Amino acid sequence: MTVLVLTCEADVTADMVVAELHEQGVPLVRFDPADLPGTGALSAEYVRGEFRGYLSIGGRVASMQGLRSVWIRRPGEPAAHAAEPSEWLSVETAHALYGMLDCTDARWMNHPSAAAKARRKPWQLRVAHQSGFPVPATLLTTHPSMARQFADQYRNVVVKSVSGKSPGDPPMALPTTLVPPDADFSGVAAAPTLLQRYVAKRADIRLTSVGDQHFAARKAAEPGQVDGRYGDTGHEWEPVEVPAQVARAVEAYKKQTELAYGAFDFAEDSTGTWWFLECNQGGQFGFVELETGLPIARAVASWLGAEPA
Amino acid sequence: MTVLVLTCEADVTADMVVAELHEQGVPLVRFDPADLPGTGALSAEYVRGEFRGYLSIGGRVASMQGLRSVWIRRPGEPAAHAAEPSEWLSVETAHALYGMLDCTDARWMNHPSAAAKARRKPWQLRVAHQSGFPVPATLLTTHPSMARQFADQYRNVVVKSVSGKSPGDPPMALPTTLVPPDADFSGVAAAPTLLQRYVAKRADIRLTSVGDQHFAARKAAEPGQVDGRYGDTGHEWEPVEVPAQVARAVEAYKKQTELAYGAFDFAEDSTGTWWFLECNQGGQFGFVELETGLPIARAVASWLGAEPA
Repeated sequence: MTVLVLTCEADVTADMVVAELHEQGVPLVRFDPADLPGTGALSAEYVRGEFRGYLSIGGRVASMQGLRSVWIRRPGEPAAHAAEPSEWLSVETAHALYGMLDCTDARWMNHPSAAAKARRKPWQLRVAHQSGFPVPATLLTTHPSMARQFADQYRNVVVKSVSGKSPGDPPMALPTTLVPPDADFSGVAAAPTLLQRYVAKRADIRLTSVGDQHFAARKAAEPGQVDGRYGDTGHEWEPVEVPAQVARAVEAYKKQTELAYGAFDFAEDSTGTWWFLECNQGGQFGFVELETGLPIARAVASWLGAEPA
Repeated sequence: MTVLVLTCEADVTADMVVAELHEQGVPLVRFDPADLPGTGALSAEYVRGEFRGYLSIGGRVASMQGLRSVWIRRPGEPAAHAAEPSEWLSVETAHALYGMLDCTDARWMNHPSAAAKARRKPWQLRVAHQSGFPVPATLLTTHPSMARQFADQYRNVVVKSVSGKSPGDPPMALPTTLVPPDADFSGVAAAPTLLQRYVAKRADIRLTSVGDQHFAARKAAEPGQVDGRYGDTGHEWEPVEVPAQVARAVEAYKKQTELAYGAFDFAEDSTGTWWFLECNQGGQFGFVELETGLPIARAVASWLGAEPA
């Protein structure tokens, strides 16, 4: 029973998990969809109700019958490395590859459908509420007057991207930013704008959830700090225990979103409450593991390598 | 309780359903995501566990609390009509719109996640098998030698697109084509290729399934005809009864794919067997209704307008 790791070539986080899988003696194939067709090949046959398929690359073959799990880490665009790449070839190849993988009994971390739905922040906020997390008051609007009213009501508000990084090569990261008191909101009419009550935090929390294991790390914040993800804040990530009610909320959230993996960001306020900011279904964990020693890669490998129930 | 119809301006099929909804006295808002932001506006507020949202266009407002159903017909690209359109604005607007709609209790025809998964033909073939449809032997491969072998084994084979129409403006339709006996298969290495045993058919069948209602139409085929979707074949679509075992298979298929709507294409062979060719989750039904008088638009309107259970 093989584990399929879909990722690009330069991916240190995948290297960590692959090393763990080797250590655990679990067979795996590492495959970049960008290499299909080309050095990668695929075949699937549907005859008399039977389905047989395989993927191959560099002499390694993953049979679809023996597929234990699929890890979607950071896969390239299908057919991106083809001799004659085109938008249509990428679409055809994506349908062939992911359609074939959907025919298997493999477990997914995470399934593309669940991932696509879980990326949308408005739905994240709703599910977070329903799962029992405290969530800062949030407004998403194209109405300048409503943005103005929200900012007046909560005084300290931040603005953030709705969808995360902007597309482009390289994608541009957009740090969460404090809205000044005299802000001009007329631009809100030009793009849906997400405003959120600013949480005065004493620390950032990153909780990485892998199956039913949850790993939390904490980084102290300077007073008034807004987005601790960028630049040097003078503090390090340190392991921290996961409160039982947070673990319960994480489990409810992952159940509703059908995610096997999620990287949750919280702001810890002066009372110790963890405020839900977002859950990134494909969030990095390498930096947390390297700074804290939390055995996340091993947990991912164990989840991927688990025998079918 | 409002029905939300997401489609572009010029959509005769949507017009038919909108007319039925008016007749049934069901309130509706017709909205093109391309008009957001601009003539269309959106606002969603997440405060203390409550969620309140609305969409508005041309003085009509759809409250998210009173949303009965969402019909995704032929929506434009979000923000396509914006004053300063960009890829990033489209992504942000799509997340805002569809993420907000996911926060509601509305029923979907069809939900974007189900639609995306159901578009992939390899998975369609697998689900069709499992649902009890007869499916012609099919190969999907990047190996020229396997394509050659499949063609030799089945003699009459057709080649078709894996993903449907090619992208582009306008998209290029790719009719299913017979593979000549002396075909050169070396090009298979350049793109995943879908080969299927040719079904010698006496008719094309289009079955349109709306909730638990199934409408079938039949068009006689000339001997040797391959793809009856294009050009004038000299025959008309006529209503035909849905065999009970086909209805059961359709229901199994729609349950597994979580589709509320599907347009199924079959080839009827000389024994009367309906061979599954594909299910288009967003397939047209206007032409079938106009030629056959089958009341499909009314069925769609009734499904969309049904009171919550």
